[in-house]
Amino acid sequence: MTDNPPVISTSRLEAFSDGVFAIAITLLVIEIHLPEGWEHDLRGALISLWPSYVAYAITFLLVGMVWMNHHRMFHFIRRTDGVLLGLNVLLLMDVAFLPFPTHVLAEALHSGDGAAQRVAAVFYGLVLVVGGIFYNAVWWYASLGHRHLGPHITPPEARALRLRWGLGPVSYLVPTVIGAFSAVAALCCYVFLLVVFCFDMRPRRRDALSS
Amino acid sequence: MTDNPPVISTSRLEAFSDGVFAIAITLLVIEIHLPEGWEHDLRGALISLWPSYVAYAITFLLVGMVWMNHHRMFHFIRRTDGVLLGLNVLLLMDVAFLPFPTHVLAEALHSGDGAAQRVAAVFYGLVLVVGGIFYNAVWWYASLGHRHLGPHITPPEARALRLRWGLGPVSYLVPTVIGAFSAVAALCCYVFLLVVFCFDMRPRRRDALSS
Amino acid sequence: MTDNPPVISTSRLEAFSDGVFAIAITLLVIEIHLPEGWEHDLRGALISLWPSYVAYAITFLLVGMVWMNHHRMFHFIRRTDGVLLGLNVLLLMDVAFLPFPTHVLAEALHSGDGAAQRVAAVFYGLVLVVGGIFYNAVWWYASLGHRHLGPHITPPEARALRLRWGLGPVSYLVPTVIGAFSAVAALCCYVFLLVVFCFDMRPRRRDALSS
Amino acid sequence: MTDNPPVISTSRLEAFSDGVFAIAITLLVIEIHLPEGWEHDLRGALISLWPSYVAYAITFLLVGMVWMNHHRMFHFIRRTDGVLLGLNVLLLMDVAFLPFPTHVLAEALHSGDGAAQRVAAVFYGLVLVVGGIFYNAVWWYASLGHRHLGPHITPPEARALRLRWGLGPVSYLVPTVIGAFSAVAALCCYVFLLVVFCFDMRPRRRDALSS
Repeated sequence: MTDNPPVISTSRLEAFSDGVFAIAITLLVIEIHLPEGWEHDLRGALISLWPSYVAYAITFLLVGMVWMNHHRMFHFIRRTDGVLLGLNVLLLMDVAFLPFPTHVLAEALHSGDGAAQRVAAVFYGLVLVVGGIFYNAVWWYASLGHRHLGPHITPPEARALRLRWGLGPVSYLVPTVIGAFSAVAALCCYVFLLVVFCFDMRPRRRDALSS
Repeated sequence: MTDNPPVISTSRLEAFSDGVFAIAITLLVIEIHLPEGWEHDLRGALISLWPSYVAYAITFLLVGMVWMNHHRMFHFIRRTDGVLLGLNVLLLMDVAFLPFPTHVLAEALHSGDGAAQRVAAVFYGLVLVVGGIFYNAVWWYASLGHRHLGPHITPPEARALRLRWGLGPVSYLVPTVIGAFSAVAALCCYVFLLVVFCFDMRPRRRDALSS
Repeated sequence: MTDNPPVISTSRLEAFSDGVFAIAITLLVIEIHLPEGWEHDLRGALISLWPSYVAYAITFLLVGMVWMNHHRMFHFIRRTDGVLLGLNVLLLMDVAFLPFPTHVLAEALHSGDGAAQRVAAVFYGLVLVVGGIFYNAVWWYASLGHRHLGPHITPPEARALRLRWGLGPVSYLVPTVIGAFSAVAALCCYVFLLVVFCFDMRPRRRDALSS
Repeated sequence: MTDNPPVISTSRLEAFSDGVFAIAITLLVIEIHLPEGWEHDLRGALISLWPSYVAYAITFLLVGMVWMNHHRMFHFIRRTDGVLLGLNVLLLMDVAFLPFPTHVLAEALHSGDGAAQRVAAVFYGLVLVVGGIFYNAVWWYASLGHRHLGPHITPPEARALRLRWGLGPVSYLVPTVIGAFSAVAALCCYVFLLVVFCFDMRPRRRDALSS
């Protein structure tokens, strides 16, 4: 059996990953529930759920961001093997877990208890950091020695992406640490990260007319 | 890194969006629960759930409608960039959120409390209006200057679609405002919108100047 | 705007329908819950859930059956238009609703209350009958006048399929009516239908050596 | 009607199976809930959920493993027929059921009751064994007489895979039996199986006769 490693094309792997990404973000809404006693004041109840909306939006957009980067990564990867598949499954395991810390964060914010909020913010942040580490593990494994890369990327560009994407878990570590002091400050930090990412994504010409 | 913007083909983006649409409408059923005390009178309990069935059907059909239009839109769009992806993610975020206002609407109708029903109808309508705005934002961004469009559409046709699809959020605003007075009247309004859409979709020949 | 009807290829439509089928059957498991007091006798609790397992398996296999037939149908259909899309969305709306009557049926069987079981069996059957009617509506609309069919099927074969698939809602009507007298008898009837379908699917040679 | 068997290409079947795999593993997280009274000690509550995390990770990775093997299997299968489709649906039915025994296992571990844990471990193991049997049934049916296989595999290789994959249900039987004595020992056994699988997947060169 020389043909031992599983035979999965990168396009198949991408489609499967897409499925997990899409389901994970769509499941986020299931964790939002009307609070007890909503019948007496539905408007107040809907407003009191703002932590759930914020947590929903931040997680949805962060996962959307990871999804876009994941596509970009697999645009460059041309070959898979068992290790790469395994690392990608670990990444998906982390992404698919996100609805739970999102729910915990929303519940803690809703409870108004400062200690619970800080624990929840750290928990949420740690899951993101671990996801970032798995993401980078996939890329390091694929790009070191240019082993699994195709013609769309040069070795220096691959190295540049290693540096750039390596910033991901570090930048998630910041709100995680901040969360140990203030959950709201951590949320602001995530919003800031999303804004930075958006600016980073704006269309730019190769001749760099835009700043 | 001149190749900075994420590299995602429109077909990939469509497949991902399809996944979110499909999951969002399939999750709607999870929010339907048997009421307390159903053991004593299951038939009565099933009948008393009619608001859930109505809310389920309306949301399912509205999302189905958006899905069809979304496909039509991406039939014309040939190129993506970061901004277009971001706007589309915002649209998906709204669609994936729909199971919650649907559930709220069904619960409020079931409770029989007029005030709660009006709040729920407005909440439901607002989520649709926001979705309609994001939908139009995608199309405006893609079609202005014909930047991201392909050969299947001419500039005048793109302009006509801007006008036509621009009616979407406006037509959702009507039942939203009506909902502030009567939730049932708002529901009738959604049914009317669906019927209009159906008539609009009936097959027509190029030579048949059917209205 | 002569190009009014939505532009969706049959392959896109199939992929979307597949997504809804896959999600609907996978959601079935969410409705299975451990009963109260399971801590004292988990083995007994797991055994007492047999109605949930039976309802899960029957619905899973019935939807699997519909999925296979749906593929077969779209193997023959070459063109879509708005009406066909709308009818297919109605079919999907029924399929995506199935987790609820499945849950109701399991709960009623678990409750041991005969009256509730009969109501649940009829409710479950009616949802299947309605699904069968939508399924046939898609096929009648597509096949009448051979309007939307491709070269893989002749008009007589299309007519034969109209007869054959027309048996579907009728054969679901039988356990629905039986369910009004005995839910268990209705379940046996569904098992019988599945067995018949399996026999019908066994490989056969064109020269029909097998009966 | 000589063309009776359903017409589904292997790629369609794979995509549908992928969907079920992706949804089943993503649904696992829904079964994780904050325990009662978490407001007083969220950190303790999150730590006390370790059985849920362990059960989540093991099931996620096991299904990921099955998914990879499933792809490999369908890399070799070139033709489907009704029986093969039916067997594959049975396999999917088992995979889609996994969130429930996973939840039961986590709850039992959390309850700290030894008897419940053993019952849960056996229940979990049995579902895996049955899945393994269905998996092998698909492969036996497809590979016997080389009926459904394509050019990517020779008859001796197909036979070797029958032996190799036949080890699957047997290797799941071991932790099932062990689980009747100790649930924790069974979990260790699953971890061991996953490690063995990982080693088995490491890249190997054709000229490298690594064991």
